[in-house]
Amino acid sequence: MSEHFTFKLIAADGRARRGEITMPRGTIRTPAFMPVGTAGTVKAMYLDQVRDLGSDIILGNVYHLMLRPGAERVARLGGLHDFARWPHPILTDSGGFQVMSLAELRKLDEKGVTFRSHVDGSVHALTPERSIEIQGLLDSDIQMQLDECIRLPAERAEIERAMELSLRWAERCAVAFGDQPGKAMFGIVQGGDLIDLRQRSAERLRAMDLKGYAVGGLAVGEPQDVMLRTLDETVPVLPEDKPRYLMGVGTPDDIVRSVARGIDMFDCVMPTRAGRHGLAYTRFGKINLKNARHAEDHRPLDETSDCPATRDYSRAYLHHLVRSNESLGGMLLTWTNLAYYQSLMAGIRAAIEAGRYDDFSQDVSEGWARGDIAPIV
Amino acid sequence: MSEHFTFKLIAADGRARRGEITMPRGTIRTPAFMPVGTAGTVKAMYLDQVRDLGSDIILGNVYHLMLRPGAERVARLGGLHDFARWPHPILTDSGGFQVMSLAELRKLDEKGVTFRSHVDGSVHALTPERSIEIQGLLDSDIQMQLDECIRLPAERAEIERAMELSLRWAERCAVAFGDQPGKAMFGIVQGGDLIDLRQRSAERLRAMDLKGYAVGGLAVGEPQDVMLRTLDETVPVLPEDKPRYLMGVGTPDDIVRSVARGIDMFDCVMPTRAGRHGLAYTRFGKINLKNARHAEDHRPLDETSDCPATRDYSRAYLHHLVRSNESLGGMLLTWTNLAYYQSLMAGIRAAIEAGRYDDFSQDVSEGWARGDIAPIV
Repeated sequence: MSEHFTFKLIAADGRARRGEITMPRGTIRTPAFMPVGTAGTVKAMYLDQVRDLGSDIILGNVYHLMLRPGAERVARLGGLHDFARWPHPILTDSGGFQVMSLAELRKLDEKGVTFRSHVDGSVHALTPERSIEIQGLLDSDIQMQLDECIRLPAERAEIERAMELSLRWAERCAVAFGDQPGKAMFGIVQGGDLIDLRQRSAERLRAMDLKGYAVGGLAVGEPQDVMLRTLDETVPVLPEDKPRYLMGVGTPDDIVRSVARGIDMFDCVMPTRAGRHGLAYTRFGKINLKNARHAEDHRPLDETSDCPATRDYSRAYLHHLVRSNESLGGMLLTWTNLAYYQSLMAGIRAAIEAGRYDDFSQDVSEGWARGDIAPIV
Repeated sequence: MSEHFTFKLIAADGRARRGEITMPRGTIRTPAFMPVGTAGTVKAMYLDQVRDLGSDIILGNVYHLMLRPGAERVARLGGLHDFARWPHPILTDSGGFQVMSLAELRKLDEKGVTFRSHVDGSVHALTPERSIEIQGLLDSDIQMQLDECIRLPAERAEIERAMELSLRWAERCAVAFGDQPGKAMFGIVQGGDLIDLRQRSAERLRAMDLKGYAVGGLAVGEPQDVMLRTLDETVPVLPEDKPRYLMGVGTPDDIVRSVARGIDMFDCVMPTRAGRHGLAYTRFGKINLKNARHAEDHRPLDETSDCPATRDYSRAYLHHLVRSNESLGGMLLTWTNLAYYQSLMAGIRAAIEAGRYDDFSQDVSEGWARGDIAPIV
């Protein structure tokens, strides 16, 4: 632990980096996967379990928390860590992404964005300053600038406008955040799939000398190779000595390939959301427990796993729970998926330290390509 | 443990009894509360947790399990204990109650009942013999006779017809069950709110010399005093040396009062269902976490509880989870409620052993009557 937010590089293998973020609430081993704790809870999990799987940090969503229970209320209750019983680091997003995807009647201008809550129809405003204020009320350890994230494909003029607006908002967020040695505010690179805009965004953010940098606006529907090419050309513009966070990404394969391009942090709803929809991520790839092939399969998802949910429960039982919409199905599969994601991250970190990241990537990819164990005949 | 199903009385205090059922899969301390594991899962709980709370036995529903995943399938997978990972005793109901409450197009005659599944509309038949066959396929330790449970109020002729039919079905179930030393088949006393019919039913079942006796058809909408009066007049007709199970009951107060009338076993969906609807059972009575008074209350439900869900999470957080329909809300409140029920049962057993059951009853009732701790002003 440390009084100051610091980032230390421990090892590198090609562009892949093994690092450590240290701050008063704890240390984050990177590359790190941050489970998404939308509204102060990682759905269908006890946070003790999330911690035990090797999670050093979780993510909270400003949009959800500002609407319910409200940032001021969380502050009066001692902040998000006390509220949710997670004493370790928390990263919060700015709220911008969900305003775009969930809220109604959005109106965006230079000042910020106003919207109607999807919960109760109440009207709210989110400016760069208010987003940082909310993240401060939540007592978030890593705070994100407010940005405008647009859907792809989009016209160049539209991508450029949103990117430039996001840069101006980054400056306002940096001013609002001020000097907080134990915490960090990250800027977000935008620019869609246009490399020159991405690079301009990265350069301008770099000039702001922020404590960390995110790449946003990817994994929003574009093919994986577009995302990877964007990283190829953008990440080298970012400073070596600051953590790099690829927002909202992704599949295990996305993560492995993005680490190879120098990304240090990830978050994604995929393991938790898929778990509530009958899908398991394993070293055999993605397994759909709804499939009838599992109905009388007494074998576990993966007998070699350390996770009780993956190792101890039969596929037949999981199939039954999923088909019957039993909450235990979502509980066991979310547990399985977060366990797999965190074991993948541990493998990634060990491989980088050992200087064998290429071999590791190939091994896990081959496992996914081989697919699931053969059905019982 | 024992090769044979046995029931031993350890202590008595008035009519309240402290006993022990022993069978190959384990010992059940009575008075016992059996959490309801409808479809092979106690909703929103890991069965490890259910066990750790002091549950010696859980209940499974034949109706749900015969429809999904199917009794023959469970048998091929090694029985319900292996399937659900609960190696301890399981009691199954006969399926009759849910056929009456959930299924469509029921047709009942002397032979049995046919119905349409509420899941997929398929047609099924349940006879006394088939119910016992299904319970055998599930490998249930305590099996229940098929009976006809009617709603109250009802005409005497209708109550008598259903009671007599249930008696004939009890005989057929006993034949179908045969001689299984390590397991038990319980008969079910019917007769509505008519004491003479209840007593006739109990006498006739007693003459069958079954291993245990249930009282069914209560807690189906009648006032509590009707239920208690029925127990007052019916339980003394049942043999002293066999366990007595009051089906589908009830609130903590129902349980305390029924134990005083000689009941040994209970099951009820109340703690699990209420937990998924924002209600907590505690020594302060029932607490509605949806209520705005909890919104900024940093205190736990009960700081003296041994249950982490009850002791460690703030009411404000629980309120937030419930209001936001977060699955963790149901997980924490179900845990709280089953913990309370099982701690109540432990208290009941200790009080009977100590010969102070009246004092104990009065103490817990006074706690509920005092109600919740005062709101934070």
